[in-house]
Amino acid sequence: MEVLVWLFNEFETLDVFGPVEVLGKLPAVTGFRFVSLHGGIITSSQKVPIITERYQLRRPDPGFILLLPGGFGTRREVDHPPQLQALRQLVEAAGFVLSVCTGAALLARTGSLDGKQATTNKRAFGWVAEQGPQVEWVKKARWVRSGNLYTASGVSAGMDMALGFIADQFGQAVAEQIAAGIEYLWNRDREADPFAMD
Amino acid sequence: MEVLVWLFNEFETLDVFGPVEVLGKLPAVTGFRFVSLHGGIITSSQKVPIITERYQLRRPDPGFILLLPGGFGTRREVDHPPQLQALRQLVEAAGFVLSVCTGAALLARTGSLDGKQATTNKRAFGWVAEQGPQVEWVKKARWVRSGNLYTASGVSAGMDMALGFIADQFGQAVAEQIAAGIEYLWNRDREADPFAMD
Repeated sequence: MEVLVWLFNEFETLDVFGPVEVLGKLPAVTGFRFVSLHGGIITSSQKVPIITERYQLRRPDPGFILLLPGGFGTRREVDHPPQLQALRQLVEAAGFVLSVCTGAALLARTGSLDGKQATTNKRAFGWVAEQGPQVEWVKKARWVRSGNLYTASGVSAGMDMALGFIADQFGQAVAEQIAAGIEYLWNRDREADPFAMD
Repeated sequence: MEVLVWLFNEFETLDVFGPVEVLGKLPAVTGFRFVSLHGGIITSSQKVPIITERYQLRRPDPGFILLLPGGFGTRREVDHPPQLQALRQLVEAAGFVLSVCTGAALLARTGSLDGKQATTNKRAFGWVAEQGPQVEWVKKARWVRSGNLYTASGVSAGMDMALGFIADQFGQAVAEQIAAGIEYLWNRDREADPFAMD
């Protein structure tokens, strides 16, 4: 089971590397691919320079996990048709999709969340919701699962969601073991969301 | 205030990018430099490829923060004199040093923790303690401060320590605001350590 990490400039650092840390401890994960639309160096909002490979539509491992971060760059990418077209193809091919924070805005723009429940960063909630008027946005949730699509609240919630995904697919004990291994105090309850607003 | 992030192959991903996320929200931080002994591409244990600049002793900003991760690569680097010599110079020049997880083993090998309190990953505790027989190792602590040297417990504890550092230096309100901004449930009590052993 490969993890395809989709990157664009000004992604939010922890949106990516929290879930990468967690998923990297899962024995079923065979490796990570860091991919962007044009390849080359991609830098996060915190100016972390990552080397990425260029996106190519290919017949991927049908079980792969697509990890989709948020960050300031999403404000630009929601209006970038080649970005959305590539993502639409990846979302259709993926076994599971995990979006973090405003990554849900990109996911919403692919149309794949229409008619489904999802959540996102609570401070950017209004803007994200506008990107998917047909999505059933959940205002109070650490993360939401709709079939094979997982969406997390802001930044740090991505780690809790990644552990929740592991608990769903591989059992609670595996998730607990991974959290303990990285000395992470897992927020296990997806409905407990201290950052929810109104 | 610049953050110099010291990297080596097989560093642990979240040891670096948890604190980078937190420190990146601090207005006093002007930027990050990702530095390694020889420069070039450095990959984490989770195979994240990062571009680094080559270490050069220069007269740095006296207030800079040195961030020192742990990870499997520390097992090799504690016996690598050029690595330790570079680190010794950086630790002496730094305004503050923040080590995460087994990064404390490298810090101990520079001698700068001798006679001081420090902590580290609770599962690798014995091995790290052997790297610094003159260090007063604290078995139960989420993180420890000894003057300008901060040491965190395993992996995820780095985020709690980074917020603790910010609270010490810039006030509790700044730390709380940053934690809320990234929807992080901060473990504020440095003495509360559910992963402590015996």
